[in-house]
Amino acid sequence: MKKKQPIGVFDSGLGGLTVVKSLIEQMPYEDIIYFGDTARVPYGGRSCETIQAYACQDVDFLLQYDVKAVVIACNTADAMARKLIEQRYPLPVVGVVGPAAQKAVSVSKNKKIGVICTRATVKSGAYEAAAKAVDPAVRVFTRACPLLVPLVENGRFAKEDKVVQIILDEYLEPLHREGIDTLVLGCTHYPLLKDAVAQCLPDVQIICSGEASTDTLHEMLVANDLLNDSQDAGVHRYFVSDDAAGFTENAELFLGRSLDGAVQCVQI
Amino acid sequence: MKKKQPIGVFDSGLGGLTVVKSLIEQMPYEDIIYFGDTARVPYGGRSCETIQAYACQDVDFLLQYDVKAVVIACNTADAMARKLIEQRYPLPVVGVVGPAAQKAVSVSKNKKIGVICTRATVKSGAYEAAAKAVDPAVRVFTRACPLLVPLVENGRFAKEDKVVQIILDEYLEPLHREGIDTLVLGCTHYPLLKDAVAQCLPDVQIICSGEASTDTLHEMLVANDLLNDSQDAGVHRYFVSDDAAGFTENAELFLGRSLDGAVQCVQI
Repeated sequence: MKKKQPIGVFDSGLGGLTVVKSLIEQMPYEDIIYFGDTARVPYGGRSCETIQAYACQDVDFLLQYDVKAVVIACNTADAMARKLIEQRYPLPVVGVVGPAAQKAVSVSKNKKIGVICTRATVKSGAYEAAAKAVDPAVRVFTRACPLLVPLVENGRFAKEDKVVQIILDEYLEPLHREGIDTLVLGCTHYPLLKDAVAQCLPDVQIICSGEASTDTLHEMLVANDLLNDSQDAGVHRYFVSDDAAGFTENAELFLGRSLDGAVQCVQI
Repeated sequence: MKKKQPIGVFDSGLGGLTVVKSLIEQMPYEDIIYFGDTARVPYGGRSCETIQAYACQDVDFLLQYDVKAVVIACNTADAMARKLIEQRYPLPVVGVVGPAAQKAVSVSKNKKIGVICTRATVKSGAYEAAAKAVDPAVRVFTRACPLLVPLVENGRFAKEDKVVQIILDEYLEPLHREGIDTLVLGCTHYPLLKDAVAQCLPDVQIICSGEASTDTLHEMLVANDLLNDSQDAGVHRYFVSDDAAGFTENAELFLGRSLDGAVQCVQI
């Protein structure tokens, strides 16, 4: 039965686990197939064509497990490849950009929204488009932060870390100057930096793209009568394209709990 | 005639251009085919199997241009895949690890050598093995520096940059404590950090792996009667697997001159 099928989630690597974290909290009875493309991480500095090609390969992998819906748990892939994926695959697709942009517009009072993200996400213009579709009067200020993913992936995200402070100050200062009252963490790696960002911008509301995405997924599953009505805890399986050991070691940071399933390395 | 054929050089991305820089300076009459695997950069945190697979695909690409020799201008690929490449391909192969290790042993007085490099290069043990093959009494201290490639790729390498100073201090302090008198910059991205490293370790001799490699290549070409005896300036062609524009934009930093050939994006 279709309701019992797993939800497929993919990201370039570890970041998407912050989306899985919300997903498990909100829908503990759903089965999940996660794919992290660790052999080709990071996506954020690559070209549109390459990101689209990689994203479609990621979805092809998930489809082998007969997933009932796909969550693009990577802002870069969502921004660059969402339309292509929706056209190519006949199943519900939920991204992270749209839900986060909608939430930001709804909570912002002065309608000045900042977004920190990868170079590719800035280039796509996806956040501006998604926010203006909700409210054309909103102003969106995007800022590429290419060093944040390497910092987080190397365990540097504490608000006490001097390097984190200097880099965040540099990235956030222009957004602060624009007078934003809401900031979207527009990369699924960034929730780990939430405290450090809040320290830098104490009066700004912070939106994590993953949390907003899970709300949208829930609505979509309800609308399509795809919500799993089981009362059993969901089964979660994790796949990566490289270095299962490294993924396992760092997963807890992103997932907020230890991995509840084995990680398998596959070639895609 | 075989002498007239180009030299093939590959790297995961831009770093190998520091090797091309030495190559052009020392052998201006040689033709060069360069391949940077920018669709899958960086290699330094990936598994041995993945690095070997990528490196062989890189060599396969170069062979289409009938290269007379291959330069592995990436310490990570050299450390992990050198033996495999030598076994699989019947042509002279020059790496960066061996020549740099030999040079370090020859200049070190106290026989305590430091190496900064990627995680994969540390894991391979290639520098220890290469140095001890020359002098078993030498002591080699390797240190993985995973943030240096992202910093350099984002244009942060100036010795005045506070972030560069903090990160280098952290990485180099344990090597300084061991009393090294010689340090190998064991990643082809690191020559851009030479001044910042020298500021951190003022009494230590610094070896750039690319320069040592070019000396070895020259010897090998002479030994195999493959040196191009033309008096004309060599033709240099550059290929990447993603984002030719980004590569072109940053190439000058690594090459020390503007690119003298067009960059072509190819699928491998």
